[in-house]
Amino acid sequence: MKFNYVNPTQILFGQNQIVGISGQIAPDSKVLVIYGGGSIKRNGVYDQVTSALENHNWVEFSGVEPNPTRETLDKAVELVRSENVDYILAVGGGSVIDGSKYVAASALYDGEGWDIPSGKHQVTQALPIGAILTLPATGSESNMGSVVTNATTQEKLAFLSPFVQPKFAVMDPDVMKTLPERQLVNGVVDAWVHVCEQYITTTNNAYVQDGYAEALLRSLLKLGQDFENRDNDEWRANLMWSANQALNGLIGVGVAQDWATHMIGHELTAAFGVDHARSLAIVQPSLMRNQMATKRAKLEQMGVNVFGLAKGDDLAERTVDAIEAFYQSLEVATTLTDHGLTTEQAVDKIVGQIESHGMVALGEHQAITLTESRQILEAAIQ
Amino acid sequence: MKFNYVNPTQILFGQNQIVGISGQIAPDSKVLVIYGGGSIKRNGVYDQVTSALENHNWVEFSGVEPNPTRETLDKAVELVRSENVDYILAVGGGSVIDGSKYVAASALYDGEGWDIPSGKHQVTQALPIGAILTLPATGSESNMGSVVTNATTQEKLAFLSPFVQPKFAVMDPDVMKTLPERQLVNGVVDAWVHVCEQYITTTNNAYVQDGYAEALLRSLLKLGQDFENRDNDEWRANLMWSANQALNGLIGVGVAQDWATHMIGHELTAAFGVDHARSLAIVQPSLMRNQMATKRAKLEQMGVNVFGLAKGDDLAERTVDAIEAFYQSLEVATTLTDHGLTTEQAVDKIVGQIESHGMVALGEHQAITLTESRQILEAAIQ
Repeated sequence: MKFNYVNPTQILFGQNQIVGISGQIAPDSKVLVIYGGGSIKRNGVYDQVTSALENHNWVEFSGVEPNPTRETLDKAVELVRSENVDYILAVGGGSVIDGSKYVAASALYDGEGWDIPSGKHQVTQALPIGAILTLPATGSESNMGSVVTNATTQEKLAFLSPFVQPKFAVMDPDVMKTLPERQLVNGVVDAWVHVCEQYITTTNNAYVQDGYAEALLRSLLKLGQDFENRDNDEWRANLMWSANQALNGLIGVGVAQDWATHMIGHELTAAFGVDHARSLAIVQPSLMRNQMATKRAKLEQMGVNVFGLAKGDDLAERTVDAIEAFYQSLEVATTLTDHGLTTEQAVDKIVGQIESHGMVALGEHQAITLTESRQILEAAIQ
Repeated sequence: MKFNYVNPTQILFGQNQIVGISGQIAPDSKVLVIYGGGSIKRNGVYDQVTSALENHNWVEFSGVEPNPTRETLDKAVELVRSENVDYILAVGGGSVIDGSKYVAASALYDGEGWDIPSGKHQVTQALPIGAILTLPATGSESNMGSVVTNATTQEKLAFLSPFVQPKFAVMDPDVMKTLPERQLVNGVVDAWVHVCEQYITTTNNAYVQDGYAEALLRSLLKLGQDFENRDNDEWRANLMWSANQALNGLIGVGVAQDWATHMIGHELTAAFGVDHARSLAIVQPSLMRNQMATKRAKLEQMGVNVFGLAKGDDLAERTVDAIEAFYQSLEVATTLTDHGLTTEQAVDKIVGQIESHGMVALGEHQAITLTESRQILEAAIQ
């Protein structure tokens, strides 16, 4: 077990924490407030933010879409330059925060912003970012990852850089009060799969990492099981903190990671617009069954420690069934068929994109070639 | 649930990480290497450190004792001043790191260093500290706490300051290969009680914090049960990472904390020289029984989730018995009697010190007055 780890994001968790942002941003900063479709104007967050910034000089950029596009974000980069912005304040969920990371890095890069997710340019500097989370799911508020879509080319690509990790993250669970049911469900599923990507791998008896991952999975399972009773402070706080911990880097230190479900899922979203979390729910059970040989031991451990299943020869298979049943209990579809994608052409399109991005050896063992990716997708047509 | 949290210490975990310190300390720094009784010269750590510092300007200070005394540490402060040291490198266990924190803060304070633990002076600046951990137990390598002893007055007092939190912490499990059995046992027990202080409290259904705490307790229980088979990389890495996580602040965010076991235990160490971890093993079971009314619910949860005990009316009592049996399985005494302290005079002395430090309302509910402290200590005579 060998790793380097630090998480430098200052977490401000709890009700009425938005007011604290003024102390986190230097008073002489020129701030760009970036947000999405305007829900923050309806739920009061926009007013809280502008009130907190009353002594700061700031401008705003709205309209960042789910699966944020470089086409939109490049306009924010122009605004940063024309307004001499030196601090980015992202107010939103994973899409807005991921998009803000693209903006913060692109603004200090002379070339095309898309060079960053496409891998042509390695980020060496970025404007500082603060995040006010309005939708718990991705963990982007305190990590160095970003996923951006190129609408023109239907590409959805990720990049990582310590320079774009937020300096602070406000997590006020009250912002979840007005979230649509669909987004809360997506948050539970997205966080769940984030944990799985760092847990359902070759075991190396890392007690802390395994135990933390199982604690998060049990938390998310319980939150899903209590979904009908979600309208209370405790439920909201537990989801927000679980989703953050699921992808702040901690549970993945010193252990194998996989991420093949995400890589294939991204292409499904890019090609057919399936919600990110829902793309994962389609790919993951099928991928687990395809990769059963190397994932059996950890699935057995998960079956006992997370789902409380009885031991037995088919424990790993029953664990995958339990994962699938968990998604279905939240009315999240687990097949391509459920999304109306039943044809070989649909599979061809996704596999074609996987190939065009050079993702010909996915997963912890690089064992998922195009052949396995096709098998996984075909098995998701039922 | 409301909290602010960040842990800014860069963790360098794993074998052969000591070589990396040269990149963590500015090349033009004047470094003071602080260590203890010289075990680092016998186990090769000293050579690794001096080799890593070959391009740095450094001096050294040795002789920091277990339960580090201000009498010794004040000499290091003098050395810092006379040598114009601007970086402290602590090489040791919790005592050396805690002592280094005292030195780093005292060096930039005009008054008596002891003003800091005694509460007369609030730390506002300190020299930067790096830590190379040689004994996993206290978590001091990545937190802001320090406990220092005044040998003259037999006082052992704690202080907290973000300014003394190490900038980086090297955790190479190989340094544990030459540790005496007694110190490894102390490490397991110390880390265990650190988790308990943040977990056996009023429950507020914080799924992540509770789940993480239980994961650490299960890890430490397993490591204790496997104590005979401890001579392997996996055991060492798991203990080192568990002990770090037990007191890096994370599991305690947003939940009640207690620390009465530590407060009473410190006085036992100050008065009679009982090892820190062993003082906790004496106080804790007795304190749990004394405070059963408010701790029952969490002890029941711990009984099921950590020890796998069956539910039932006396579950909480059986959990305390299991904790006590765990200590005894490691040949750690759980009574004052085992340490030869059987008289009312011994109890009088400890209670007198508790009173003299104004600790007349200890624990999460401030319910442990001098009367309860006396009851707890008397019940530990058997």
